[in-house]
Amino acid sequence: MSVETIAWKQGKVTIVDQNALPGRLVFLDIRSTADLCRAIKSMKIRGAPALGAAAAFAVWLGIRNSKAKDYKALAIELKRLITLVGSSRPTARNLFWGLEKIEAALQRNRYCPVSEIKQALLQEALSLLEHDKSVSRKIGSFGQSLIKSGDRILTVCNAGALATIDYGTALGVIYAAKEKGKKVKVFACETRPMLQGARLTAWELRRHGIDVTLICDNMAATLMRQGKIDAVIVGADRIAANGDTANKIGTYSVAVLSTYHKVPFYVAAPSSTFDLCISSGEDIPIEERPREEVVSLFFKKPIAPEGIRVYNPAFDVTPQELITAIITEKGILRPPFSRNIAGKIKD
Amino acid sequence: MSVETIAWKQGKVTIVDQNALPGRLVFLDIRSTADLCRAIKSMKIRGAPALGAAAAFAVWLGIRNSKAKDYKALAIELKRLITLVGSSRPTARNLFWGLEKIEAALQRNRYCPVSEIKQALLQEALSLLEHDKSVSRKIGSFGQSLIKSGDRILTVCNAGALATIDYGTALGVIYAAKEKGKKVKVFACETRPMLQGARLTAWELRRHGIDVTLICDNMAATLMRQGKIDAVIVGADRIAANGDTANKIGTYSVAVLSTYHKVPFYVAAPSSTFDLCISSGEDIPIEERPREEVVSLFFKKPIAPEGIRVYNPAFDVTPQELITAIITEKGILRPPFSRNIAGKIKD
Repeated sequence: MSVETIAWKQGKVTIVDQNALPGRLVFLDIRSTADLCRAIKSMKIRGAPALGAAAAFAVWLGIRNSKAKDYKALAIELKRLITLVGSSRPTARNLFWGLEKIEAALQRNRYCPVSEIKQALLQEALSLLEHDKSVSRKIGSFGQSLIKSGDRILTVCNAGALATIDYGTALGVIYAAKEKGKKVKVFACETRPMLQGARLTAWELRRHGIDVTLICDNMAATLMRQGKIDAVIVGADRIAANGDTANKIGTYSVAVLSTYHKVPFYVAAPSSTFDLCISSGEDIPIEERPREEVVSLFFKKPIAPEGIRVYNPAFDVTPQELITAIITEKGILRPPFSRNIAGKIKD
Repeated sequence: MSVETIAWKQGKVTIVDQNALPGRLVFLDIRSTADLCRAIKSMKIRGAPALGAAAAFAVWLGIRNSKAKDYKALAIELKRLITLVGSSRPTARNLFWGLEKIEAALQRNRYCPVSEIKQALLQEALSLLEHDKSVSRKIGSFGQSLIKSGDRILTVCNAGALATIDYGTALGVIYAAKEKGKKVKVFACETRPMLQGARLTAWELRRHGIDVTLICDNMAATLMRQGKIDAVIVGADRIAANGDTANKIGTYSVAVLSTYHKVPFYVAAPSSTFDLCISSGEDIPIEERPREEVVSLFFKKPIAPEGIRVYNPAFDVTPQELITAIITEKGILRPPFSRNIAGKIKD
């Protein structure tokens, strides 16, 4: 049942090709930094927590066959790789956190021989996989306390097993609720333009035997008005020190709708998603993606006039005042977020 | 430049096949009630005002070769046709208004010979085309007074030339503003699942030389938060006596977002869209459409897991308290709507 989104097997990185889902479950073997960066850019692997591990492995793939003779030469190569991988996608904080973890492992082992440093870097990348599995389950455990049996939960994009290593943040809360014997019903927003909700969330919830209904993004408000949504749970790509949360485009819209309809709005994310150097969401870099994602579905048949101008931000920022609570592996944070984030989350 | 969405030419009804746009501008000749009903159901012709005329012609196509010898026989056939056409789509009030116009023409001419009654029915259907052209321009004329040069306007679905005979309601306001020399910029929500915004609104605004940018529905909130939307203008499928407005799914969502961001939210619709027999939006029948519209784009390649449950309401209801004004051919209605609708709109 359980699928690892990214794994290290027999000298290569194996990822689930998320652009092939839901049609086919395809594993891709990746052997170079460039190939893994391409997979990240094209969203074959995506989801903030998964990108933390992917970034670390992307660096490892570039460094493992390095001919560097000493720490200094290795460090120069590593810095170059970190810059390269860091330019693949800008918004998810976890990607940079994964790179920082690799760089810290280098620093810790600077007095070791090059072969041992390399081994330590691989161990660090591997430990990020185990770390994520454990963190996701803790988030699930804390988060499920917010869910009552019978709840109908709306989610956006995919913050599930496919966005992490094997369990999920927002969907991890749902899996944990199910493990506690609670019955939950999920409404998955399809999440245009890349349809992660339709393709990934619907797929993995069904695999886990969760009752799921697919809707277009513009139908969420109607369900809320009908009183059919008890809670919203979403993931996050970057959370500022004040709690402002960047997540997949459409999240902010759902947060405003939740506030208007008095539906609790929860964010579920590991502490690696927090960026304490950023005071508010205004400073979070928002990626703009290619227009082709909007004008044609999966780059196939056009669905809009040729040459039409498109605005295609990949993320938006939900201001902290619209967030009911943030579920982390260190516990559930509630307002005032600035104080409570500072108290619980450390870099 | 100007294209007639539906026309009567050389003994047949000609419609623009809106499912072929934006790729190709295809005209379909339609010769029977059944074919026109199929075109309505499959949304080859759509848009509340256009459906009023389409319904009238659908009845005419069924009655024109009638062998009925007297009024009574003809009336029985006509009633049956009205029931049939009335079952094609439930939400747009104009469709039923078109049928009522045909029935009233029958009544007015009940003492005429059958051949003259038939001629009167055709004249009535033809007059609906001219009526719509005139009404759309009046709506545009009133509505453009609400638009300032430089305004950035968000719209949902297609309430343009393609939703009427040749001008539009919500987009008619934009065309009229342009004719007055005002510069406007339009953001078109793509409008899942059927993408009328991407396929139709983007297409016709470009044809008319209007600056248009396409967005996914879940991006509207972000633009509003950025202060980039000065007004929202949408069409309507049915307006209750209190002003509650049914329109394409996603309209309610945008109305809540407009209210939250203090952006004026305008509805533009002819008086034939008002249903004074219905006191509030709760009584408006909302069509649910096939799941295939959501799980595959235009019934092509699947974009969601096989068998996934789908909720696919075609319309939603925007409660009157979220509406700034309703633009009609009889003038601009403002709250309190119940009183002002009763004063201006007569069946």
